[in-house]
Amino acid sequence: MSTTGPAALPQPVLVRGTGLLGTSIGLALRGRGVEVLLHDPSPAALAVAQDIGAGRAVDLEGAPAGDDADTPVPGTVVVATPPDVAGRVAVDSLVRWPEAVVMDIASVKASVQAEVRAAVGNGPLTEADASRYVGTHPMAGRERSGPVAARGTLFTAAPWVVCAEEGTSAAAVAAAEALAGSTGATVHTMDAGEHDASVALISHLPQVAASLVASRLQETPAASLALAGNGLRDTTRIAASDPQLWVQILAGNAARLVEILHGVRADLDRLIGTLEAPDAPGARLDIARLIAEGNAGQARIPGKHGAPPQAFAVVTVVVDDAPGQIAAVLQATGDAGVNVEDLRMDHASGHEVGMLEISVLPGRREELAAALTERGWKVV
Amino acid sequence: MSTTGPAALPQPVLVRGTGLLGTSIGLALRGRGVEVLLHDPSPAALAVAQDIGAGRAVDLEGAPAGDDADTPVPGTVVVATPPDVAGRVAVDSLVRWPEAVVMDIASVKASVQAEVRAAVGNGPLTEADASRYVGTHPMAGRERSGPVAARGTLFTAAPWVVCAEEGTSAAAVAAAEALAGSTGATVHTMDAGEHDASVALISHLPQVAASLVASRLQETPAASLALAGNGLRDTTRIAASDPQLWVQILAGNAARLVEILHGVRADLDRLIGTLEAPDAPGARLDIARLIAEGNAGQARIPGKHGAPPQAFAVVTVVVDDAPGQIAAVLQATGDAGVNVEDLRMDHASGHEVGMLEISVLPGRREELAAALTERGWKVV
Repeated sequence: MSTTGPAALPQPVLVRGTGLLGTSIGLALRGRGVEVLLHDPSPAALAVAQDIGAGRAVDLEGAPAGDDADTPVPGTVVVATPPDVAGRVAVDSLVRWPEAVVMDIASVKASVQAEVRAAVGNGPLTEADASRYVGTHPMAGRERSGPVAARGTLFTAAPWVVCAEEGTSAAAVAAAEALAGSTGATVHTMDAGEHDASVALISHLPQVAASLVASRLQETPAASLALAGNGLRDTTRIAASDPQLWVQILAGNAARLVEILHGVRADLDRLIGTLEAPDAPGARLDIARLIAEGNAGQARIPGKHGAPPQAFAVVTVVVDDAPGQIAAVLQATGDAGVNVEDLRMDHASGHEVGMLEISVLPGRREELAAALTERGWKVV
Repeated sequence: MSTTGPAALPQPVLVRGTGLLGTSIGLALRGRGVEVLLHDPSPAALAVAQDIGAGRAVDLEGAPAGDDADTPVPGTVVVATPPDVAGRVAVDSLVRWPEAVVMDIASVKASVQAEVRAAVGNGPLTEADASRYVGTHPMAGRERSGPVAARGTLFTAAPWVVCAEEGTSAAAVAAAEALAGSTGATVHTMDAGEHDASVALISHLPQVAASLVASRLQETPAASLALAGNGLRDTTRIAASDPQLWVQILAGNAARLVEILHGVRADLDRLIGTLEAPDAPGARLDIARLIAEGNAGQARIPGKHGAPPQAFAVVTVVVDDAPGQIAAVLQATGDAGVNVEDLRMDHASGHEVGMLEISVLPGRREELAAALTERGWKVV
């Protein structure tokens, strides 16, 4: 039995599902010396995950009790399957290993929780079995999927929600928190309903909005799109998401999302009515109200490191599209002793230059602009 | 008479309205040696614009013919007022200076064009007068407003639309293109209808979507917002826009915007219907279709420098929140001879580290990851 890794995390840890997230969890835990077993219905995915060092592949067939040497009894099972089968695999795991903590990582929690609850009584589980289940959601991802894209550092500084329900055992919650913490994530504790309501607003609504906007661009003439700036790019960036994954996420959280979308539709209807008679009395006030309400909501989004929202000052520098240019600007910024709070490139159509937008504390803005100008940079 | 600046641009140039954009135009033209006159109904704004070198303040009262020494006759007039008075000031300028080219820079063009047309015949203008008017739209801005925020480099590499209509004189179009080009902007030529349809889609729709999403966050518990990632931040960034300005823009382009919003509402209604019965036959396909349509639209947005959209590979590096860290990573990137195509910070709540996401050509990804890892950086 391994003796490294956090004491609250029963080992070995079995990861069921070696996609991007499952494999990344394996890599992160192996990096902390935790004993990790891997399983996936796809032999190819499983082999890749083992080859890159995420843990040891095991065969679950013929080993329901898991008590032979090849398949040790897991102390913790991480269900890292696609979301639509997470509930079924969680129940299966609770049945197979009657002592193990079982956690899943699906991005919607109440439906998985409900599937586990439904298996109690009439189903194969006792109340004690169900108490070993804990729903979690690591809020991390990459633009690529599959075990090849996995990284042990994927969860560094990412939020990882652990859903402690009334019936969840303290040991299960402690194991989930220990596992999440081991990967470098920040643990947030809330119940499944609170989690699902939160992600409906901060993740599923933005996805729907981005898709709705981007969808309108399908027939747009290229000359119009050539005028696109960062406003459009930012608003639609997540519209590039995977349809198969998002079908499962949106359908899994349908009730909570639909409630929010009714509110959006009411606002949209009001705006359409106003824009159909833009010179009617009160019309301008109505439009201003929508934008002002957006101001108020946007201002509540926390800033860097979860700090209160803070208005940074932006220094914009013109940089050529050549290696080393951005580094040189930031080198000069570091030499001036000014910390970079945020950073982005603003790309313009048709020019071989870019704008580097450096966010700094407001009190440092003029100092940095002067320092960069003095070094010959073109500060906009 | 000045002999510098482009020949196609009749001088002096009078800028009417010394806010952010008007003052920035003055600064850019002065940087090219063009003679610039400034006027604004606010003496304070006018004084600031003159003091920072955007041109020479002039008094338009009592000088309708503009033929005394203090108020030379402008060859070109740039109407840089708030959008809702741009048409009126354009007509006034065409009347006051019967030889001058008159251009405005409001962000909606058909309504200004219509005001100028309405002044022909029954109004104070002849057809010849109207042919001296040309509508334009520089697509640049800053998070701050007013002449103090003005920069001569504001338009560098930004698109600047020049609307050549059937009745517009070639000299007026040439003057507008010369002025826009002088500021470093990239000229795009299209008619007013095409412009307004374009910005309705690529600018006004994203603004509405961002405001609608952000508006939903007004009552969200802080614990939910603490889970927010870059998806929410990006989708709502422009929701911080100025309500007074956006009322004028949205109301000014109401007819074109409302047509697009009807399409959005139809898609939203369909999604709401689907999510109200997520297990009905065809429901999942319907959700997948929305996301896939978003994929298709998003993929059409041009990339850097107006190049065809390109999928860059991303190298993510963990950096501490301390001066010089980002510079050091990019220095190493430059040393490796790899060009940075795009750059962003990914901030996580509750951790004093950030993720620097470096976009590079796909073929350079592994090379860069290896080079950074070798230099001791934590590549995610």
